[in-house]
Amino acid sequence: MIKTLAVVGATGAVGTIVLDELQRQQLPYERLKLLASSRSAGNTLVVDGQEHQVELLCPEAFDDVDVVIASTPDDVAAEFVPWAVERGAIVVDESAFFRMDPQVPLVIPEVNPEAIDAHQGIIASPNCSTTQMVVALKPLLDAAGLKRIIVSTYQAVSGAGLAAQEELTRATQGRLSGQPMEPKMFQHDISFNLIPQIGSHKQAGFTSEEVKMVHETRKIFGIDSLAVNATCVRVPVQIGHSESIYCETEQPLELSEINDLFRNAAGVTLLDDLSNQQYPMPVDCADAPDVFVGRVRKDLDEPCGISFWCVSDNLRKGAATNAVQIGKLLADRYTNVSA
Amino acid sequence: MIKTLAVVGATGAVGTIVLDELQRQQLPYERLKLLASSRSAGNTLVVDGQEHQVELLCPEAFDDVDVVIASTPDDVAAEFVPWAVERGAIVVDESAFFRMDPQVPLVIPEVNPEAIDAHQGIIASPNCSTTQMVVALKPLLDAAGLKRIIVSTYQAVSGAGLAAQEELTRATQGRLSGQPMEPKMFQHDISFNLIPQIGSHKQAGFTSEEVKMVHETRKIFGIDSLAVNATCVRVPVQIGHSESIYCETEQPLELSEINDLFRNAAGVTLLDDLSNQQYPMPVDCADAPDVFVGRVRKDLDEPCGISFWCVSDNLRKGAATNAVQIGKLLADRYTNVSA
Repeated sequence: MIKTLAVVGATGAVGTIVLDELQRQQLPYERLKLLASSRSAGNTLVVDGQEHQVELLCPEAFDDVDVVIASTPDDVAAEFVPWAVERGAIVVDESAFFRMDPQVPLVIPEVNPEAIDAHQGIIASPNCSTTQMVVALKPLLDAAGLKRIIVSTYQAVSGAGLAAQEELTRATQGRLSGQPMEPKMFQHDISFNLIPQIGSHKQAGFTSEEVKMVHETRKIFGIDSLAVNATCVRVPVQIGHSESIYCETEQPLELSEINDLFRNAAGVTLLDDLSNQQYPMPVDCADAPDVFVGRVRKDLDEPCGISFWCVSDNLRKGAATNAVQIGKLLADRYTNVSA
Repeated sequence: MIKTLAVVGATGAVGTIVLDELQRQQLPYERLKLLASSRSAGNTLVVDGQEHQVELLCPEAFDDVDVVIASTPDDVAAEFVPWAVERGAIVVDESAFFRMDPQVPLVIPEVNPEAIDAHQGIIASPNCSTTQMVVALKPLLDAAGLKRIIVSTYQAVSGAGLAAQEELTRATQGRLSGQPMEPKMFQHDISFNLIPQIGSHKQAGFTSEEVKMVHETRKIFGIDSLAVNATCVRVPVQIGHSESIYCETEQPLELSEINDLFRNAAGVTLLDDLSNQQYPMPVDCADAPDVFVGRVRKDLDEPCGISFWCVSDNLRKGAATNAVQIGKLLADRYTNVSA
């Protein structure tokens, strides 16, 4: 049981879903505090049938807080997380700011729950595109080792927030009526288009999103030498990131073994019947907590090569669901301590 | 100079563009015949300012024809191509029906023009997703050899014809207004969605489109052992196929060499300035004859690994443009013969 739980960024695209996940996952807490910037503070939100006034995000707001679940931009996290940690709270942070800090565990409960034990006040939740890939690859890693990953993403606009979802709708209406709009949330008009850039230019021609997939995957799996090659692309889909994943295991696996591994993996739902046109698609996977896997194939030439298609709700498992799952791990520990 | 040129399937999505490409490329012919099924025969089309009545596709229609450029479904090609060949015509066929026939050259003029010499009446033009990939990879193959290709496609709906383009528009309007429509051209509603299936289940979990990319690429390059792993995905884009291509060359190349190779390659336009948000996107590449390449990167771990993003108008270089270019190769030979 968590005495006082604070949700930071409660009014944003992900924060709203964090509140929903609190109920879906039945995270046990005694008291709930909703915190947001001055723009949203003062608003009232209903959680589990109860009205909560959104309070201003400031240092003193954390005086009586035990656990924080936070969905904010990196710069906001950089500022407020130390306020909470100094006051003894444990922060589950969904921003990228602390993820690669060696003192901060980067946790997916199905993959590396034991990592939270090393926390020093901050536990980071990974990038959305990383999370679903790592959840899907975990059973293959455990069964046969992993040498390399080559991934191409098809990422929904909601990864860039509520305003980006509105922009896709308005840009689509604009292009349908022959009056294209000037993009604000994206570099270019995303309607009926693809933008092969997510984030900024980071290094050697790779974007920040692509580099996150390399380093976060290595950190979560604890394999510094894992080869990861990512190409991240924005597509005109509202919710649900899709990924075309190719990997090479250390030991070869039979197709039937691979399917069994996916079928039995925590957090994974296998949906793979090509002849009956069954495979994961973003419009079907939105709102579900799972990572969906389909189109599973063995490479025709490389005995250790495996291709598959992976879809997950980027706002759920890619963000809110994972953070609340980390909160549940913490709540279990609180119970143990007080027992 | 071609004496009599017949365009078969002249009223379809690709056929219409073949007629436009005849003028763009100034294919030299004396007389033009437009042929189509009974549904479209009798219609009048204007080509190069001149009215042409569409004639019925039947054996006798080829009595006086020298060269045919055909854009029809596979089953139509299977029936009419023999009629034309028996009457001495040379058929440039865009369907998949004859592509893997060992007696039929599969030709991309920038890549393997010499292959047309072996023709026995039929020359096939490759699948749209294959063509742009092969054009882009050709300079890398020539400079450093090619060991393997791993490609994920983002394919526009126009690959499935005019009705598919209309379906994307209507499905989008339907979903925007909360009244989703029943799909006809696709397996599922493509609006704001992704469908990881193009074609039917072919072998070992791969679709017919994915298998085409394997076998056609090997045939055009003349490398039976080339490893090709493809994942083909339909995206809600009207025109322009995009591909995330990873390849390994036999010899390592420097990034500057790779960029120079793309810059100087026939049929390729390099558009690669990530910091200034410049890269190929389908809405910008529609209507252009070139294969556009951007996001060029060396793999961070594999010295011979190269990633890039490739976009091309699937109706132009992916179909009509390539077929008319083959027609030009033939016209050059006709000139030589009569000279």
